[in-house]
Amino acid sequence: HHEAIMLGHGSGGAMTAELIQRVFLKYFHSDGLQQKNDAANLAIPDNIHRIAVTTDSHIVTPLFFPGGDIGRLAVCGTVNDLLTAGATPKWLSAAFILEEGLPIAVLEQILESMKKSAEEAQVEIVTGDTKVVERGKGDGIFINTTGIGYIAENFQPGGEKAAPGDAVILSGTIGDHGMAVLCARGELGIRADISSDAAPLNEIVRNLQPFARSVHVLRDPTRGGLSTTLNEIANQSQVGIELDEKSIPISKEVNAVCEMLGFDPYTTANEGKMIIIVPDEIKQDVLLAIRRSKYGENAAIIGRVFPNHSPIVLLQTNLGTHRILDPLPGELLPRIC
Amino acid sequence: HHEAIMLGHGSGGAMTAELIQRVFLKYFHSDGLQQKNDAANLAIPDNIHRIAVTTDSHIVTPLFFPGGDIGRLAVCGTVNDLLTAGATPKWLSAAFILEEGLPIAVLEQILESMKKSAEEAQVEIVTGDTKVVERGKGDGIFINTTGIGYIAENFQPGGEKAAPGDAVILSGTIGDHGMAVLCARGELGIRADISSDAAPLNEIVRNLQPFARSVHVLRDPTRGGLSTTLNEIANQSQVGIELDEKSIPISKEVNAVCEMLGFDPYTTANEGKMIIIVPDEIKQDVLLAIRRSKYGENAAIIGRVFPNHSPIVLLQTNLGTHRILDPLPGELLPRIC
Ligand SMILES: Nc1ncnc2c1ncn2[C@@H]1O[C@H](COP(=O)(O)OP(=O)(O)OP(=O)(O)O)[C@@H](O)[C@H]1O
Ligand SMILES: Nc1ncnc2c1ncn2[C@@H]1O[C@H](COP(=O)(O)OP(=O)(O)OP(=O)(O)O)[C@@H](O)[C@H]1O
Ligand SMILES: [Mg+2]
Ligand SMILES: [Mg+2]
Ligand SMILES: [Mg+2]
Ligand SMILES: [Mg+2]
Ligand SMILES: [Mg+2]
Ligand SMILES: [Mg+2]
Repeated sequence: HHEAIMLGHGSGGAMTAELIQRVFLKYFHSDGLQQKNDAANLAIPDNIHRIAVTTDSHIVTPLFFPGGDIGRLAVCGTVNDLLTAGATPKWLSAAFILEEGLPIAVLEQILESMKKSAEEAQVEIVTGDTKVVERGKGDGIFINTTGIGYIAENFQPGGEKAAPGDAVILSGTIGDHGMAVLCARGELGIRADISSDAAPLNEIVRNLQPFARSVHVLRDPTRGGLSTTLNEIANQSQVGIELDEKSIPISKEVNAVCEMLGFDPYTTANEGKMIIIVPDEIKQDVLLAIRRSKYGENAAIIGRVFPNHSPIVLLQTNLGTHRILDPLPGELLPRIC
Repeated sequence: HHEAIMLGHGSGGAMTAELIQRVFLKYFHSDGLQQKNDAANLAIPDNIHRIAVTTDSHIVTPLFFPGGDIGRLAVCGTVNDLLTAGATPKWLSAAFILEEGLPIAVLEQILESMKKSAEEAQVEIVTGDTKVVERGKGDGIFINTTGIGYIAENFQPGGEKAAPGDAVILSGTIGDHGMAVLCARGELGIRADISSDAAPLNEIVRNLQPFARSVHVLRDPTRGGLSTTLNEIANQSQVGIELDEKSIPISKEVNAVCEMLGFDPYTTANEGKMIIIVPDEIKQDVLLAIRRSKYGENAAIIGRVFPNHSPIVLLQTNLGTHRILDPLPGELLPRIC
């Protein structure tokens, strides 16, 4: 009963088995893991003909920050990517790269958070892996989650489906995650009351089901923020997107910290937000559906899609001028997720 | 056009997009990736009612060794875990944690190897992720692959299905991977002509299909080697397993290096071997089917399952004595896969 991770915990032998049994399986329960085989054997219902598959590794630093931690991120990030396909998230794999010396108590705190987030998101962790690297060859813990969800025939949004005239809806405020992690690093000597938005957005997407065929695009503006994600969509659909600055939800605190430090909230990461693109005719109904969903209370219509010979994202500023919103070029905030 | 990985390649912005487009997508082609959405949208055939799901992160050092490299391992390891479920491997996710400073040329060499291994194993990489950690917070490259395969109703082996009287077959020699990586480290000043066995075992499992319902257990003896894996099976099935030392395939070189360095070949890792447990009546037919498969030429019947009140793995040695084969306790060779 060790207090910290040792190289032997990655041997694949008795120490690994004991760590899995005594620590990981204390938090993870599922039929897939219960089978104790090298691959989980999972049933697909007869009415399911398509699945969504997505993967993300998580390397955030620090491991804990206001509003979340690496475990919550690892679950929610993958769940939200499944939701962007209109899918119902079902199963996650969870693979851990642990650094020698990681306190088991820290690991358990992260697992507890993964367990809670997975319950909230109604997904099961069905298979796992545990590797250990020597001190100084990793950074505490890296977590990969890969997700599988069921796709319904009538609900298959995609980045290529934005059409001129469509409305662009955002499910809430921008910049919270990036600024929360930045402040948590403490390097800048800033104390701000900012929490990460890390959250699973199942309910928002579930409440879009009545509009299924009309939901053109769903995408979560994570690394690279709103600007980068909208540029990706503009590129895939070969359209222009125009945003109205005054309609874009942002908290006072995030705005203040961004201004003070020279960060752009439009390229700052979010971990609990969704961009929803739908035909103009239904935008008000869709907005209401989102607003009555958990994590969708602050949703707003933030812009529209217009025809353009080259993809572009424009911001109509509060001053009435236009600004081009470019994708984030390189790294401003490394290891944000 | 950078020559080495920079933090900006993990931003999720333009530098990440360029790295994916110019480097990763040069090697990976699939419908899933072609969609350019956050999750791949994949069709499941009407006759498929179950899928296998498995995950492994790969942290091997050195990145290249005789017979393989981290890329080949990452593909084959996950493919073989799918095969242990009797599944037909179909799709992989691939998630990369790159250390700042990794030469792009090294990355490309690894991707080329993944591409070739995926072609050989007939799997497609359908979704990916790219993260970057600062110099000294990783070790060149870590790769997670998560795999999905189709399961046929009549072919569902499991570690819990070993039955007294069953024969234990091994698809080839033991210890090659572990000793190849150890020698490649060069720390021990040993030069041996040992190559890793890293390989996808699709053909072996395909050739078992005529015996489908009778294949009780399939498992790949990776970390922890033959001893650890057989102990897992003995535990799951609550049986004893007895091996006959003289029938267990091992190369002269591996045997010599193990003796010289005091390693036990029975707990040394393999990356291209399968344990196959079937009823005694069909063992010769199964053995022939395996021997005419790629990577199965040296297959042998190595032992049998017997009833026992507690799980145990016994070795009848060349000297006629019995030795208990225990699981590997802790770490002898860290970062072997
Ligand atoms: N961190 C974890 N949490 C939950 N289950 C885990 C974890 N790590 C491994 N497992 C489960 O333990 C079992 C053994 O995993 P292990 O990684 O040893 O198998 P493997 O992938 O076949 O071997 P290797 O990793 O050496 O290739 C599997 O059922 C796996 O899903
Ligand atoms: N190394 C890679 N090889 C191939 N495709 C990749 C790779 N990394 C990412 N991709 C693909 O690029 C697209 C964008 O991936 P990205 O990771 O930026 O999306 P995301 O997971 O939604 O964002 P985030 O990682 O910030 O949560 C996806 O289609 C993904 O499959
Ligand atoms: Mg993501
Ligand atoms: Mg996403
Ligand atoms: Mg594993
Ligand atoms: Mg494995
Ligand atoms: Mg295995
Ligand atoms: Mg990603």
